[in-house]
Amino acid sequence: MSFEITSELLANITSSIEASNDKAIVALFEEMHYADIAEILDELSFDNVVYIIKLLDSEKTSAVLMELDEDIREKTLQNLSAKEIAEEVEELDSDDAADIIGELSQERQDAVLSQIEDEEHVKEIEELLAYDEDSAGGLMAKELVKVNENWTVLKCVREMRAQAEEVTRVHSIYVVDDNDKLKGRLSLKDLLITSTKTAISEVYIPKVDFVNVHDNLDEVSNKMRKYDLEAIPVVDNDGILLGRITIDDIVDVIKEEADKDYQLAAGLTQDVEADDSILQLTKARLPWLFLGLLGGVGAFLIMVLFENTFDENAVLFFFTPLIAAMAGNVGVQSSAIIVQGLANDDVKGSINSRLIKEMLLAALNGLVLAVFLFGFVWFYEGKVNTALAISVSLVAVIIVAGLIGTFVPLFLNKRGIDPAIATGPFITTSNDIFGILIYFMIAKLILGI
Amino acid sequence: MSFEITSELLANITSSIEASNDKAIVALFEEMHYADIAEILDELSFDNVVYIIKLLDSEKTSAVLMELDEDIREKTLQNLSAKEIAEEVEELDSDDAADIIGELSQERQDAVLSQIEDEEHVKEIEELLAYDEDSAGGLMAKELVKVNENWTVLKCVREMRAQAEEVTRVHSIYVVDDNDKLKGRLSLKDLLITSTKTAISEVYIPKVDFVNVHDNLDEVSNKMRKYDLEAIPVVDNDGILLGRITIDDIVDVIKEEADKDYQLAAGLTQDVEADDSILQLTKARLPWLFLGLLGGVGAFLIMVLFENTFDENAVLFFFTPLIAAMAGNVGVQSSAIIVQGLANDDVKGSINSRLIKEMLLAALNGLVLAVFLFGFVWFYEGKVNTALAISVSLVAVIIVAGLIGTFVPLFLNKRGIDPAIATGPFITTSNDIFGILIYFMIAKLILGI
Repeated sequence: MSFEITSELLANITSSIEASNDKAIVALFEEMHYADIAEILDELSFDNVVYIIKLLDSEKTSAVLMELDEDIREKTLQNLSAKEIAEEVEELDSDDAADIIGELSQERQDAVLSQIEDEEHVKEIEELLAYDEDSAGGLMAKELVKVNENWTVLKCVREMRAQAEEVTRVHSIYVVDDNDKLKGRLSLKDLLITSTKTAISEVYIPKVDFVNVHDNLDEVSNKMRKYDLEAIPVVDNDGILLGRITIDDIVDVIKEEADKDYQLAAGLTQDVEADDSILQLTKARLPWLFLGLLGGVGAFLIMVLFENTFDENAVLFFFTPLIAAMAGNVGVQSSAIIVQGLANDDVKGSINSRLIKEMLLAALNGLVLAVFLFGFVWFYEGKVNTALAISVSLVAVIIVAGLIGTFVPLFLNKRGIDPAIATGPFITTSNDIFGILIYFMIAKLILGI
Repeated sequence: MSFEITSELLANITSSIEASNDKAIVALFEEMHYADIAEILDELSFDNVVYIIKLLDSEKTSAVLMELDEDIREKTLQNLSAKEIAEEVEELDSDDAADIIGELSQERQDAVLSQIEDEEHVKEIEELLAYDEDSAGGLMAKELVKVNENWTVLKCVREMRAQAEEVTRVHSIYVVDDNDKLKGRLSLKDLLITSTKTAISEVYIPKVDFVNVHDNLDEVSNKMRKYDLEAIPVVDNDGILLGRITIDDIVDVIKEEADKDYQLAAGLTQDVEADDSILQLTKARLPWLFLGLLGGVGAFLIMVLFENTFDENAVLFFFTPLIAAMAGNVGVQSSAIIVQGLANDDVKGSINSRLIKEMLLAALNGLVLAVFLFGFVWFYEGKVNTALAISVSLVAVIIVAGLIGTFVPLFLNKRGIDPAIATGPFITTSNDIFGILIYFMIAKLILGI
């Protein structure tokens, strides 16, 4: 039953389009899930995508549009008239509708909105467009089922039959007072298992989790994850119920957040996929690589400084890649732990206590590694001094690298900057330079040259 | 309304325990959410955790146990009698119950199970324990609401009132035939908006997504994410309904998967948190660092091979950190893109086409970077040959690094090994060695030494 895209399927669609055999295409997509259709369209030529979107009725295509690759959707929207977009948008819940319209230029936004008949829908979309897209308001939908605390279960069920038509998925029913102030919630289950004469005020659960419309999405997702919520109501500063956020949207937020951090740690500027064009991938990869190049040049210049001192100690230079690698690895490890801890907000205690802990940790790791290195160099070169110089500076380098890797993300986070940028190439490059500098300075000291 | 742990709160709890003022403690936790209680316990001394778990009634503590840090839960369970654990387990849904019992030794498992009164519950737990924990069966719960296709809506609602008591959250109602074969689903919403006399067979939706009990969790989470499902039924090979998986469990799977990949890319062995002990953190970090050390030693040995050329070409050696860094960064970038693509299963096409694409990409990046490097070396050293040698080998190194970074994860994935281990230190280390070797070979060739 699992869905698979075959080259036959794609070929068959393309030929139907060439033969403009619309019946066949409509029939093919008739029973298909919108997510599957989107997956197919992502594989088709752009003209064919537009052809199909225009062919199928908007009830179907609106959901497909939401699932399309962003760049494909963007291009598609450019090829639809304001009227056509308006038809798509009318089929969507307010949150998706706002997302689509938000991708358009200001003039087109107005053009599209003016084409939407349902005044209520337009008002909702305009309200949602006003919120920051990283805030609860930017993700919430206006569609929800709410009942007045003064109703009976019977009245409530009747009212809901009306409201529920509008709402794609009913999670819980929100109970409000006459001013729309959120009072509590009621699960469908409770409705099903209580007598119809009971008053809502007697059965509803006053304890309800909610978020403020201006809360950051990370807070929202952490809260929904922690309390295993499937939907959470969104209120304004006065506690008035404005909308709700559902877990399926939060799942996407969590996934995108994780992908973004992973790519930053790997030295990729965000939003690049394995199937993107070579040019897109180059744009995503070159900047960090160039940073790495500069770091390498910096390391070179440092070594030039020490060149004359080491004619008889060339071996010191042979260990610079080792030093750089260790400094980089330690830095990435410690920064990654902090970045992840901050994301799951389980980083407690002061920056100082963190740094002290990291210092002990790095010292411990460094000592173990230094012992091995000392043994190797001593055995291989037969010079205790050189072995000592190299392994002592290794410990120093590892400690400094650990401290930088711990401090930078904590510092950025305090400054309100996403600490994730302080992982990967950023930390490795800076650590390469510091590492090699420290390495040569200490080696010089110990060897007394 | 958002929950915060204050040092006052912790101090106050500790003192109440010392004064064995049980009333105060019970009162404090009375109204508190189990996830908040777990967060508090994670901060308390281990003895106090056990004290509180034993004090509060299992209806409350069972949920708390599930939320505790794994190591704390493990230690706590060791301090509870089989009877006490059985009481906790009786309060839990079958999936959570199986998770708790699965963490115990075989003998303790039997001891606990023999203490559970509810035979049905024991049967369910034993069934779940039999499944691989990375399979749908390992995550599903037995609790669900199912109705027979031959019932009427009225009968259905009555039956559900009984079943729903058992089920923490009702998502959709599954429709089965007399043999428990999954026929379709029914949303609570549908129940609420159709007349009670209608027959289920007329209203249920026959099109229902489901997973096989042996499906891998990645498949399950990808499917639930793609189709925005909040719960998915689990069936055996004959289509018999066995259980269901809810989105809140999948959210945790997605988060853990992402954290694990991130940590692997950062050179951490899994499951380490910022607040773990220095010893735990060392155990997580040292292995990869040691790998890096070996890589550095490898680089050293390679340079020794070319030592004799050092005197007149010392500058070559000064660029080895740059070469190593670039090889490492490119390798991490390309492997990260593949690993992420595989996880989101949007890596299409053959391995060869991937490698060709990566080769072009790396060549493009390499050329741009090489031009800069050439300019710098030429300007700084005034030797065209040296500049040429270094920048040409840079291009070669970047291409090889990109190919390794692309091939290794694809290869591991084909072999059924988690490709995520091929990121971070693993790829950087191997690329350091290959990179420096290629660098010197090509430089030697061009400089004719």
